[in-house]
Amino acid sequence: MTSPSYRDVLTAAERLSGRVHRTPVLTSALLDSASGASLFFKCEHLQKVGAFKARGAANAVFSLDESYIKQGFATHSSGNHGAALARAAALRQVPAYIVVPSNAPQVKQDAIAAYGAEIILCEPTLAAREQTLAAVIERTGAVAVHPYDDPRVIAGQGTATLELIEQVPGLDVIVVPVGGGGLLAGTCLVAEQVGISVIAAEPVGADDAHRSFTAGQRITQHTPDTICDGLQTTLGAQNFDIIRPRLEQVMVLEDSVTAHAMALIWTRMKQVVEPSAAIVLAAVLTNPVRFAGRKVGLVLTGGNVDLERLPFGRDHERNSPSR
Amino acid sequence: MTSPSYRDVLTAAERLSGRVHRTPVLTSALLDSASGASLFFKCEHLQKVGAFKARGAANAVFSLDESYIKQGFATHSSGNHGAALARAAALRQVPAYIVVPSNAPQVKQDAIAAYGAEIILCEPTLAAREQTLAAVIERTGAVAVHPYDDPRVIAGQGTATLELIEQVPGLDVIVVPVGGGGLLAGTCLVAEQVGISVIAAEPVGADDAHRSFTAGQRITQHTPDTICDGLQTTLGAQNFDIIRPRLEQVMVLEDSVTAHAMALIWTRMKQVVEPSAAIVLAAVLTNPVRFAGRKVGLVLTGGNVDLERLPFGRDHERNSPSR
Repeated sequence: MTSPSYRDVLTAAERLSGRVHRTPVLTSALLDSASGASLFFKCEHLQKVGAFKARGAANAVFSLDESYIKQGFATHSSGNHGAALARAAALRQVPAYIVVPSNAPQVKQDAIAAYGAEIILCEPTLAAREQTLAAVIERTGAVAVHPYDDPRVIAGQGTATLELIEQVPGLDVIVVPVGGGGLLAGTCLVAEQVGISVIAAEPVGADDAHRSFTAGQRITQHTPDTICDGLQTTLGAQNFDIIRPRLEQVMVLEDSVTAHAMALIWTRMKQVVEPSAAIVLAAVLTNPVRFAGRKVGLVLTGGNVDLERLPFGRDHERNSPSR
Repeated sequence: MTSPSYRDVLTAAERLSGRVHRTPVLTSALLDSASGASLFFKCEHLQKVGAFKARGAANAVFSLDESYIKQGFATHSSGNHGAALARAAALRQVPAYIVVPSNAPQVKQDAIAAYGAEIILCEPTLAAREQTLAAVIERTGAVAVHPYDDPRVIAGQGTATLELIEQVPGLDVIVVPVGGGGLLAGTCLVAEQVGISVIAAEPVGADDAHRSFTAGQRITQHTPDTICDGLQTTLGAQNFDIIRPRLEQVMVLEDSVTAHAMALIWTRMKQVVEPSAAIVLAAVLTNPVRFAGRKVGLVLTGGNVDLERLPFGRDHERNSPSR
């Protein structure tokens, strides 16, 4: 498979039509005032499966000819991609096998199971995830769909940003979270085409993208410790190659700032987003000089949270998922 | 002031145009499936001040001639009406004085203060609220705007339902919460005009509307104990007169069921609503026979919650605001 292009994002958008939501864009006068910028929130937490991952998974699943997919699909995922692949496989009426690290939030495991996929639990390390997935593929003959290091997935995720720039003409800059870099790479392909800057937001406790971008080479050594459970993964190889020449910068955020941003989105916009999504607002509020007076697109990537493990309130230290 | 009519709701809608949001209506395939009905959620948690109360207060404030209002407006409120009146007074550039019971959620007190109103704290009883308000009016000369027992407020709240029936033609029944009965009375006026049934939802721990409706006379004896902090007030006199001949029934809900419904709205629809709003979904889920196969309108009345006092999670017993 070759590196994806802007044209692949356009093709993905056609393929996804009717298979995922065209999500709304929300604004907030209060958050505009707090940031000194004009903020446009692309609501992927209102997407199917509650996350933008529905896009990439569906693009991968529906881009293959029927003769290739009889044995179904398999992946490893801490949650949202797993649910997305399970849903896409169910739409094509083939099986799905999802390898899930044992520390993944229960709400995300439940979502995967609800689509009828088989869940295979493993230790929460990248090595264990990859080994377990290899064994599953050997056993079942399923087609692997990587959560982010896959051109069809990258092109699919890019459709979120493609919609955003259609919905909000004249954006100056787009801020997206970076974990494995699927959404970020897809966003870079789209933004380059229209001349919009892209900034990535990453937690201090999983800052491999920032270190890779700064070093000019991909750094995979990585021991994540963050409330952003969707951003613990390591930046992918293809993702890094796409991102490196196109990205303006990676902003690194403390979890406490992300939790504050999340509380603002919940209480002011009344939208349930997960920490991995709220980090984009944290980036804007932490860097007022960069964003002041600008028209800023922010992708709210997902809204799948365990209500019993929230990163605010008087019990948040004890309830923090990373402790 | 005479009892409000459907025509007063139409007049209020004109007066409120551009002064409050026309809020969206959301649907959820998952909650339709869980309920066996077609549910249409009118999103008043996305209204100005985070609650439908913005409507009634603005209608009252903007219906008076300028010569009457120089000394400003005053009211007693556990939160949302206070913020709504503070906002409406600020729009007309006159002062607001809000009497707030000392147990009102901090988030609601903060919202009132943010609109520049003066907050006067009192004991959390109806008697203390009314006495304190009388003293404030004597001191300031402000015009009192009752939270619900006021024809201008009732007509204003009715505009939420007026919009809902325009946005969703063919509704069979509308479910709204009942506290003081402002929204319920306004809804009854609108629904009667188009022949749609109205059902009220009320917590077991504040069931004076149910007892009043059953007895055929208003019962004001009332010691509220519920997580629905917006529904602790006693049904108003004018409200009861409007509701009594028009309402189908009052459904009474346990707080635990309301908390479950609230968690469903948060996790499935990704919308932050307060317990007093979620009770409408609790009513539908608890009474499947009444709603099965029906096209049901539900007013999500507000989204102002203290994130530190949520009615779910392992700490909810300790954190419950009524304990």
